[in-house]
Amino acid sequence: MTQDGRLIRGERTRAAVLDQALRLATVSGLDGLSLSQVADALGVSKSGLFAHWRSKEALQLAVIDHARAQWTDQVVRPALAEPAGLRRLWAVHERRLGFYEAGALPGGCFFSNAHFEFNARPGVIRDRLAAEQSAWMDFLTRVATEAVELGDLRAGTDPAQLAYLIEALGVCAVMQAAVLGAAPTFRHARRALHDHLRTVAHHPEDLPELI
Amino acid sequence: MTQDGRLIRGERTRAAVLDQALRLATVSGLDGLSLSQVADALGVSKSGLFAHWRSKEALQLAVIDHARAQWTDQVVRPALAEPAGLRRLWAVHERRLGFYEAGALPGGCFFSNAHFEFNARPGVIRDRLAAEQSAWMDFLTRVATEAVELGDLRAGTDPAQLAYLIEALGVCAVMQAAVLGAAPTFRHARRALHDHLRTVAHHPEDLPELI
Repeated sequence: MTQDGRLIRGERTRAAVLDQALRLATVSGLDGLSLSQVADALGVSKSGLFAHWRSKEALQLAVIDHARAQWTDQVVRPALAEPAGLRRLWAVHERRLGFYEAGALPGGCFFSNAHFEFNARPGVIRDRLAAEQSAWMDFLTRVATEAVELGDLRAGTDPAQLAYLIEALGVCAVMQAAVLGAAPTFRHARRALHDHLRTVAHHPEDLPELI
Repeated sequence: MTQDGRLIRGERTRAAVLDQALRLATVSGLDGLSLSQVADALGVSKSGLFAHWRSKEALQLAVIDHARAQWTDQVVRPALAEPAGLRRLWAVHERRLGFYEAGALPGGCFFSNAHFEFNARPGVIRDRLAAEQSAWMDFLTRVATEAVELGDLRAGTDPAQLAYLIEALGVCAVMQAAVLGAAPTFRHARRALHDHLRTVAHHPEDLPELI
């Protein structure tokens, strides 16, 4: 095999392992993740995985990067394809709920699970997750700020306050859907933001009709 | 020692162990809890604990009961001491946020952590947590229904929808406070419900002023 061939095969293996590890982490926890468990699930040798990650912590950090890349592809980028303002703000919420509804990950949401798992455990993993949480709230706040600046929302609207509401409705949806039923849970999560945006939007008709 | 003395000592030990186990569970997870860990933290023998709980699962179930009793004492009962309607609805939110702010548990909220930890793990623990989640949402919905029936909220208000909003704002608060700062997080969590209730209450002046 040429050097390029080995590199491609290595990259493919790496992506396959991270996909599997990400899925496992949403079920048994990021701390429950081990190289042995991932190797078993994929039917490969543990020593093969050591070529990519020297420690459990290195694997955990790689899984966080992988989860973020998936979230960017499936939630952030499609939302950014919508026009800035009210429609983009709605699209972020809608894409996120759609990601959960589609069952992309068996445990619902990697980041929500991991935040609750690590918030009280100081260390490298917790610091990285905190940076992700902060970056995500900054993103939501920016999208809300655009909507205010473009005149889509009432001038007095506080973008950080609105970002908090959007995040809260999303986190609760993924917590409750599997237990209390997906249909009512996602209906509540959509309706709550829709009702709120109707009270603060200058042109609520730009929002989709909810069934 | 008399039989009564032994019984009291046994009950006291039981309560002390459960307090400690509850605190540990909010940091290292309910699944991370073990009789050995609890025994070490309390400086007692593991065999002594076996007199109370025959298995890790029995201990986990007892911790869930203990967490519920704490939540009832510190959140539900004080809220129920307020007059039914808008003021009681607000008191539930306020007491819950106060519980988090006071740092009653080192990991923030036993139930939020446990829901995210177990939602994708079928079994006895998950079923019990699901029943708790369902009972809690029924409680919030009942308090919201009272507020509608007493004429405190607009007739068209959907109590289940309002319960969802309250739950979402609370869960997100405990997720973010430790990472993004308690002051802005709890301010957002209060302000969001306050703003909402002002739009649906007939007498918003019954709500406390927010600073």
